[in-house]
Amino acid sequence: MAICEILSVGTEILLGDILNTNTQYLSRHLADMGIAVYYHTSVGDNPERLAGAVRTALSRSDIVIATGGLGPTPDDITAEICCREFGFELEYDEATAEKITAYFRNKGVEMPQSNLKQAMVPKGGTVLENTHGTAPGMGMKKDGKCLVLLPGPPYEMAEIFENRVADYLSEYRGGAIVSHEVRTIGISESRLAEEFAGLLCGENPTVAPYCKIGEAFLRVTAKADTAEKAEEMTREVIKIIKDKIGEYIYGIDCKNIEDTVVPMLKKAGLTVATAESCTAGLVAKRITDIPGASAVFRHGVITYSNEVKIRELGVKPETLKEYGAVSRETAAQMAEGIRLRSGADIGISVTGFAGPDADEEGKAPGLIFVALSAEDSSMCEKIETGRNDRDYNRYTAASRALNLIKKYLTTE
Amino acid sequence: MAICEILSVGTEILLGDILNTNTQYLSRHLADMGIAVYYHTSVGDNPERLAGAVRTALSRSDIVIATGGLGPTPDDITAEICCREFGFELEYDEATAEKITAYFRNKGVEMPQSNLKQAMVPKGGTVLENTHGTAPGMGMKKDGKCLVLLPGPPYEMAEIFENRVADYLSEYRGGAIVSHEVRTIGISESRLAEEFAGLLCGENPTVAPYCKIGEAFLRVTAKADTAEKAEEMTREVIKIIKDKIGEYIYGIDCKNIEDTVVPMLKKAGLTVATAESCTAGLVAKRITDIPGASAVFRHGVITYSNEVKIRELGVKPETLKEYGAVSRETAAQMAEGIRLRSGADIGISVTGFAGPDADEEGKAPGLIFVALSAEDSSMCEKIETGRNDRDYNRYTAASRALNLIKKYLTTE
Repeated sequence: MAICEILSVGTEILLGDILNTNTQYLSRHLADMGIAVYYHTSVGDNPERLAGAVRTALSRSDIVIATGGLGPTPDDITAEICCREFGFELEYDEATAEKITAYFRNKGVEMPQSNLKQAMVPKGGTVLENTHGTAPGMGMKKDGKCLVLLPGPPYEMAEIFENRVADYLSEYRGGAIVSHEVRTIGISESRLAEEFAGLLCGENPTVAPYCKIGEAFLRVTAKADTAEKAEEMTREVIKIIKDKIGEYIYGIDCKNIEDTVVPMLKKAGLTVATAESCTAGLVAKRITDIPGASAVFRHGVITYSNEVKIRELGVKPETLKEYGAVSRETAAQMAEGIRLRSGADIGISVTGFAGPDADEEGKAPGLIFVALSAEDSSMCEKIETGRNDRDYNRYTAASRALNLIKKYLTTE
Repeated sequence: MAICEILSVGTEILLGDILNTNTQYLSRHLADMGIAVYYHTSVGDNPERLAGAVRTALSRSDIVIATGGLGPTPDDITAEICCREFGFELEYDEATAEKITAYFRNKGVEMPQSNLKQAMVPKGGTVLENTHGTAPGMGMKKDGKCLVLLPGPPYEMAEIFENRVADYLSEYRGGAIVSHEVRTIGISESRLAEEFAGLLCGENPTVAPYCKIGEAFLRVTAKADTAEKAEEMTREVIKIIKDKIGEYIYGIDCKNIEDTVVPMLKKAGLTVATAESCTAGLVAKRITDIPGASAVFRHGVITYSNEVKIRELGVKPETLKEYGAVSRETAAQMAEGIRLRSGADIGISVTGFAGPDADEEGKAPGLIFVALSAEDSSMCEKIETGRNDRDYNRYTAASRALNLIKKYLTTE
């Protein structure tokens, strides 16, 4: 398997002024091509340090892809330094110069002479045309190694990569790699790791647990000669996972729970309304993050005080008195209250302590109840995150509330 | 000036599964501390390659900060490899083990035995407590060099860095650097750049414009022998900025508009209620992101359809018919409606098209109205973001709505 290193050049990256999204983009695409990325390196616009980084990269990798520093200003030194270190000379290229000149002519802007520096390309290398900007990409191959230089602006870089670099690297492609994410809510990353300790030791397919706020997932990745074979290999493993923890799975390769649940509601022709205390609008916000959510969501209420819970949702004062605002009973009445008031098919509710302070009733932050009310069914879940982290608790609570909709729609 | 390298550990980074935001965060904070970051490196969870990367980093930098790979699973090898390469032994730490055990006990969850691996810390090093998770940070110093290990989850990493690592690195800090952010809403980054073109060329203090979703800010940074001198230098520049664009500034060095407005409301003894269409709970969610917001916020309504706007807020059907749901008139009635219904002192509302689709009325995505209603005053603002980006439009709208509260409280 060919080994690749991604080298980002630019002092602005080292200062944290920009987020290095190019490296993620390239990593993902190279992985899909069956090329193993073993290192990411970032260096500033400094000749010695850049030269050192290029030497190191060429010594340990088959392919080095450098981004940034191909501009027209004196601190743009990537082409000069990289070509020198790889043993290529720069030469003036008429065709590239004409393209740069045309680029400015088309914009109706006078071309700064400095831009012609961008027409200097490696002799014996390949010019990788930039249709979105003036700095062309460049490719060089020697002794089985390959060096590719790409401009830093993400949309220029991506266009060149997809349309020219992918082909340029075709001889390095490995077999097919297929990867799927099994997304879960209500089970922790460490419990996933325990349940599937055996699978986690596998070499092909590999299974790895990850956590995000409010959920955990397993990534199943298989390598094979063909995509079909790799797909088949992941399918078998995913079946094992489904058989064991199916109740926690809300989807495969989906973006998040809201992106799963809103289309399900649409398909079922059902509407949902929300009554939120602790999450204060986050559940509604996440439902409506999905374009076209207005078909399934019309009404939500945020009831941040007991008084408003009573007045707007018909929660009984006795319930609040006896069980408290953060209780199974209150959550259930909130969900039913909003369902009846809104006329929606499904009402969901959240009430809890997000923290960071302990509440008047002495209950710990992270104690939350979520409930669902439908004409034919009701559900309520208690959550104890054990964390004193407001954002974490609220996001987790919203995910669990949304997951109730998924449970309701799949158990019917 | 001390030289620092940031080392990110994790195969998921090399695969492009996650975006490396930790490195940007650390780079920015280290720059503010007067510590020069010369290299970023990412490697996977592979013992040889990680060991090589640590050796290289320690050979060329004074400070190495490694993130990721401190979890409980067998592929978490950062502590073991890094300590070995820096010549520190790992030892079992009772106090850390107790914290981890307590963490699970508080959650009411049985602790997987594997988590006790996270109680292994470097002998002779410093444990940097993790209040948000189980993996503690670790610091080691030897022969003028320093190695810091931090967990990978961004919120855990950031909390440890801000509250413990910054102090731990105090001896490496460069002269005094003072930096302030002048935060604005309602003026664009490019207009800031134009207004202050002169200041932007300054070398010390430096002034740089940045944009975040829904707002823009100017960062003013000065270097001097003492913090007092640097402070004085920034003060002069900030005065110039305030004199010119004071009306757009909502705060200096504040976290965000909600963090500014909620304490202002508390101080004034006023309550606010929300009526949201386009943002669907995001304004309420952001108000209640601030702990203790229940003193100023009790009630919000999400009215995602015309019918609910009429029924719940008393918006007039004629208004909706004549001007449409996305109009100054509807926004004003929504704000007044929620104020009267809730009994709050201030009502705020949002109605607009978040996109991505053009609406039935043919209005463009990014056209949004925000309004405020109080007994003695009302305000309404029209926003045209010109963008077809749902998240951007909704966040911007929420910021502008919250900014109305700030305007109301400061113009009285």
